[in-house]
Formats: sequence, C-alpha cells, structure tokens
Amino acid sequence: MALIIQKYGGTSVGDIQKIQQIAQQVIKAQQEGHAIVVVVSAMGGETNRLVSLSHEMAKIPDEREFAVAVATGEQVSMSLLAMHLIDRGVKARSYTGQQAQIITDSQYKKARIVDINISSIRKDLDDGIVVVVAGFQGTDAKGNITTLGRGGSDTTAVALAAALKADECQIYTDVAGVFTADPRVVPEARCLPEITFEEMLEMASLGAKVLQRRAVEFAGKYQVPLRVLSSFENSLGTLISFEEKKMEKPVVSGIAFNKNEAKLTVMGVPVIPGMASSIIGPISEANIDIDMIIQNMGQEGTTDFTFTVSRDEYPKALEILQDVAKTIKAHGVIGDQRIAKISLVGMGMRSHSGIASSMFHILGNEGINIQLIATSEIKISVVVDEKYLELGVRAIHAGFGLDKEPAEEFDPVLVDK
Amino acid sequence: MALIIQKYGGTSVGDIQKIQQIAQQVIKAQQEGHAIVVVVSAMGGETNRLVSLSHEMAKIPDEREFAVAVATGEQVSMSLLAMHLIDRGVKARSYTGQQAQIITDSQYKKARIVDINISSIRKDLDDGIVVVVAGFQGTDAKGNITTLGRGGSDTTAVALAAALKADECQIYTDVAGVFTADPRVVPEARCLPEITFEEMLEMASLGAKVLQRRAVEFAGKYQVPLRVLSSFENSLGTLISFEEKKMEKPVVSGIAFNKNEAKLTVMGVPVIPGMASSIIGPISEANIDIDMIIQNMGQEGTTDFTFTVSRDEYPKALEILQDVAKTIKAHGVIGDQRIAKISLVGMGMRSHSGIASSMFHILGNEGINIQLIATSEIKISVVVDEKYLELGVRAIHAGFGLDKEPAEEFDPVLVDK
Repeated sequence: MALIIQKYGGTSVGDIQKIQQIAQQVIKAQQEGHAIVVVVSAMGGETNRLVSLSHEMAKIPDEREFAVAVATGEQVSMSLLAMHLIDRGVKARSYTGQQAQIITDSQYKKARIVDINISSIRKDLDDGIVVVVAGFQGTDAKGNITTLGRGGSDTTAVALAAALKADECQIYTDVAGVFTADPRVVPEARCLPEITFEEMLEMASLGAKVLQRRAVEFAGKYQVPLRVLSSFENSLGTLISFEEKKMEKPVVSGIAFNKNEAKLTVMGVPVIPGMASSIIGPISEANIDIDMIIQNMGQEGTTDFTFTVSRDEYPKALEILQDVAKTIKAHGVIGDQRIAKISLVGMGMRSHSGIASSMFHILGNEGINIQLIATSEIKISVVVDEKYLELGVRAIHAGFGLDKEPAEEFDPVLVDK
Repeated sequence: MALIIQKYGGTSVGDIQKIQQIAQQVIKAQQEGHAIVVVVSAMGGETNRLVSLSHEMAKIPDEREFAVAVATGEQVSMSLLAMHLIDRGVKARSYTGQQAQIITDSQYKKARIVDINISSIRKDLDDGIVVVVAGFQGTDAKGNITTLGRGGSDTTAVALAAALKADECQIYTDVAGVFTADPRVVPEARCLPEITFEEMLEMASLGAKVLQRRAVEFAGKYQVPLRVLSSFENSLGTLISFEEKKMEKPVVSGIAFNKNEAKLTVMGVPVIPGMASSIIGPISEANIDIDMIIQNMGQEGTTDFTFTVSRDEYPKALEILQDVAKTIKAHGVIGDQRIAKISLVGMGMRSHSGIASSMFHILGNEGINIQLIATSEIKISVVVDEKYLELGVRAIHAGFGLDKEPAEEFDPVLVDK
C-alpha cells in the first residue's frame, strides 16, 4: 500500500462530468490498495469569474479580501468531489487550506508555505478516508485566508506530499506527460517516461508549461517523486526522478521553446568597469525580469550589450534603455520583438561534448541564423528569428533522434542536406 | 456613538451595483459616528446555483460537504463588499463564520449557535474598522464548516448583536418594514413604526415573510432591539421593541394570512380517551407539521377532528389519515385544499374584549363563511374559503381602521352593509 497525492487542475474539474470522471480514477487507485489525498483546483473559468467580480468592486482589490474571494473556487470543487465520492459509497472528507492547516506567511496573493500540520489528515487516511484538499490556499498564523498565487495547486500537492512523505505526487493535467518537444509543433514528439528534476526545472523555466516552476523547485528541495500524467488518458505519464540511475540515459531529453521574448541591444557601450550594472540596474528597478545576457566585445574600446526580456515588457525596457544610453554615452539602442528562443535540455550533456556544435550544425543546415547563444551545464539556448521557430525545433528534434526510443548510447547522426 | 449591526439579504447584495449601494449606506452610518458590523447573505441566485451543482453530484449530498459548498456564497459577497469599502478609503475586514468564531453544534445544514468569541471583532471595531461577517455560517468545535439553514443570515445578525450587546440590529430587506397587511393585497396598508416582539413572532409564524421566525425568537431571548427596513428606501422601517411603553398602543397591529394551508377532518371519531393522539401521532411521525387543531363534539358518542397542514403535505397526510380512520373505526376522512387562514394580531387584544366578535361580524357582513377558528392571547385566526382571502383581509383592514394612524384609543366602527 502506497500513499499517493493526486492533483487535478482546473480543466480536470471543469464540469460535473469531469469531476465524476476523476472520482472514478480516485476510486480505482483506492481499490488498488492505496491511501489517497486529492488536491483540486477551482472549476475551469471560476477563478477568472471571481477575479473579474473583484475588479468590478475595486480598481486594485485589497489583497487580503481578494484572496478570500478567490479561495472559494477551490472550496466549491473540493466539496463537490467529496460529496460525489461519498454518494458512490467511498469515505471522503474535504479540507480547506485552513482546515488542512497549511500555514503560510501573510503575502495574501502569493503566500509561501511555512508549515503543514498533518495530524488530522493522517488520522483520516488511517481510517481509510479519501482526503480532498483545496489547492492554492492556506492560512497565515492569525487565521487569515491566503493564496499561493496562480497555479499554486501544484505547490499544495507537492508540499502535502513532502509533509506526508508520500510515495508519489501525481499531477494530472490535460497533456499525457512531458514531451521531447511541444507535440503541436513536432507531431513526432515522444512522451518521456522519465526525466530528471534538473531537466524538468530547465524545461519549466524555458516555457514548457506542464508544471509550475515553483512546484518543481519545491519537489526538488524535498525529494518528492513527481509524476505528470493525463486526467483523461490511461497512461503512466512522465516520472520526474532524482537519480540518474539509468545507464541508457539519453544525451538530450527534450526541446523547449519560448516565443514570448524580445531582444534589446545597447550599442557602443564604453568599456569601463560598472557599465553592466549601469545598464541592468534601471531595468531591475522597474521590476522587469531579464532572461539571457550577452556581451560582445566591439571595436575601439566599446562593446555591444544585449539581453532579452518578456515581450510585453519590451516597450517599457526600450524606453528606459534610451535614457540609459544617453547617460552612459553609448551609441544607441536597437531592439527586436520578432525573436524566439529554442533550448535543448539534457542531463547527458554534462558528459558529452559536441552537443552544442551538433545543434548549431543542424540549424545551419536549415539556413537558420543564430542571433544569441547561452549555455548552462544541462542546456543550450539559442535565439533565432521568430519565423524559424517551428522549422528549427523540428530539425533539432529529428537531428537528435528524439522521436525514437533512446538506445544504450545515442549519438546524433547529422545528415548534411 | 452606537454599535449597529446591519444585515443585508440576497436581493440587497444581488449584483455589483447593489453592493456599491449598500457600501454607501454603511459609510453613511459610519460617518454618523457609529461602529458598524455588516452581515451579508450570498448574492441573489448564488445559493441556488451551489445547491443545484451539489444535487448534480449526489442525489442526497453529504450534509458536511453540502455546507462547505454553500458557505462559499456568503464568503464571496462579504469579500466583495469589504474590498469595495477599502477601495473607497474605509477600513474594513471580512470574517467567515469560522474567522468570526461563530461556534455551532454539528448539524451541518441547520446548525444552532452555541457561542460566539467576539474578541477579534471587538478589537477591529475599537480600531475603527467596519467588520463584514458572512451570514448563515459557523464552525463546530472541530473546525467543520456549518450552515444555519436557509434565511440563517438573520440569525447571524441577531446573535452577533446579542454577543456584542449592540444598540440596534438592522435587518435590511426589499420591503420598507412590517405592514398592517401585505400591501399587494391591501394597497392602503401602513408601515408600522413599531411592533412588539410577541406580535412580530405571531406575524412571522403566520406567514408574513419579513423576518425568519428563528431570528425573532433569538432576538426575543436576548432582548436585541431589531429594526426591519428597506435597503433601497430612505425610511426608518419598523422597530421591534420589547416594552409596551406607549399608552396609545393600537388594539390590533396587523393582519397576516397564509394561503399555503389545507384542512383535513376525520369524521365520526369514537369518543374514547387517547383518540387525539392516535390521529395526530402518525402524522407527526411522518414529519408533517400541524398548524391548527379543532375538535367539535358530534352526535351519538362521536366527534369530528379537524386540523390544518401545509398544502404540499396534504396528499401524504390524507393517505395516512385514511389508514388511521380504518384503525380507529371512524366514519371517514374529508379534506379541502382550497382554504386560506387570516389572522388578526395585536397586543391590545389582551385588554380588549370583543375583538373576535368584531372580526366575525366584518366577515359575516361580507358574506364570508368562517370554517375554523383558533385564538391565542394576542391573535385570532380564521380559516375561510381561499377565494374570499383578499376580500376578507381588506374588509378586516378597513373595519379596524388599520389604514389610519392610531388614535389614543381606537374602537373599531362596524358599519352594517
């Protein structure tokens, strides 16, 4: 008998029929002899309805009251699921964040979990009761309702798994698992049976929207075995593991991409110590997150300084940079919103040289010009013209043989055009 | 400076505009120097939506989970009102039943309040904060969410008024107050500036739907000054008082009526001790509430036994009685669903004889046959053919001069036709 946490998102509890469907899944897992804790999000659309009601009441709704309103979404879906389970003869009991004693700090809109008192849930599990917990919410030490921020139900599930020392935390979504690339772009993309925590973290931060980045970090910190799988398909999904136990680990696991980027370059920056912070400082102060930073040495004692930001922050960043350029006596600022980032992720890169050059070779063969490059231990990211995104992703996917089950040691076969 | 509890029902918080309107009213009362606790119901229609969702999930929803779902209605409206008040520069804070520490027993669907821990609310009031409390809900000693039953927001308001020793508990509704009769039936009906608690209790139990009967009982028990007034009209409404302080107290205060009644008669019941309980027993066991009971002595050692029930319970009661009649060897059972009850209520009846005969006289003058009569210290109820309801109510209203402001001592002037 294992203890399993199952988390169902908004689309999985989208309507009455879907709640009945996941009840069936919960019952099946219980009949297999497992103890089950279910974490649910609000029914699809419900959170948006509550958010817009709030914005009709106040331009900037008070954060404490906003959390109180929005938290009702999960309270409804958890009670509906529990009453349906009970109706089908299964012992079940729902818990709000407060009842589950998910203690957080007092940042009402993006609270962080500081403690979970599991005694009551543990007792219910011992009594064979299916425990249904509202995702996305907690309570601060004074009893105020808090929310963990959008997508926070994943965090609730992982935190409960850590606190209860669960055998597995299953995140049910509307996709079958983590793919080698987005199947909408690469039809041959394969669902990965397993991926390491570090790879998943890179994928999540690179725009693969399967899991909330914070939930992955949390899982990593507490070594919670995480599985991503489909609510409505009968498959094993993807296990996010913490050991590189397999010898036949593929060199690369997958390709992530992000179209929501824009690039800014300050040209002719005088080469004087402190210049980088003069440029980046005002951007950070404006709360604009920076992704890649690249500095190329130029001629005549100047350099070009390039970085990328989220596309919706581009106009603001451009405005700030134009002032900065004048102050530091740079030649000027250019920018481009029509870019895309493609990233190759894989634990195997650590021990394999030549992955980067293979990737550049594949892109070159397709006539795709690489604008920027950034690398980490387990990923290589390139920025290309947005129009080459799909072509580039498909070419890399095929070139690294990601559509095929990995062999013992896979070496990319590069075929010149 | 007074401490005032204001309770707003579902129609008063029916939409965004109405919530803004009541916020205005709350602000006005605060600016007049009062400390304010607001109790709100769910937005109109919301409770019904949650109830039908629940019934889609389970034929008979588990009562604990049902309360969890339904309680979200008030949680949404309280947070919307609080965030709007804050948006308008007023310090405000919302409280769920659990946060307000409204402790109840564990009858999840119709819980009774056993205690309220007011320390946190009191502190907020001392700090000049408008306290907004979810009506209709509480928590049991174990932290489970409970609901007080439909209309329970009135009870929440009265209970808070009692616990906080408030100066006045104002129940805002969609009517201007308590009228001498239903203005839809009697256009001349007058809004009463004051009514005693006992009269209000009779009015409430006789079908005048201004206040929930339980809330009135609660107010009586704890001597809470209660005022019924309109959310959307600027008037003082009706004060429900606990003293007969005025010499010029009118003999009768108002007329209540109830069309939702049906009459059943067991004929030719043998006159043997214990017969009444043989008839009424099986009806009570079937959870059918009985209103009036009248027994008329018949001929030859038998009696006719008549009582009234709510009209929707009539078929069930008739079926039970037919069995009972056979068992006790009565002659048979007859029934009539086309009846209406008209009741005259007034504290002054205690000291005035002849009110009953005046009432019968008025009805007789209109050619209305009286089928049943029941009296208490402060009310006289008659059952008549349903078709005479409006005629009877209007005639009694006019005959007792209820459309006129009461003079020192009013004696009904009866004019023969």
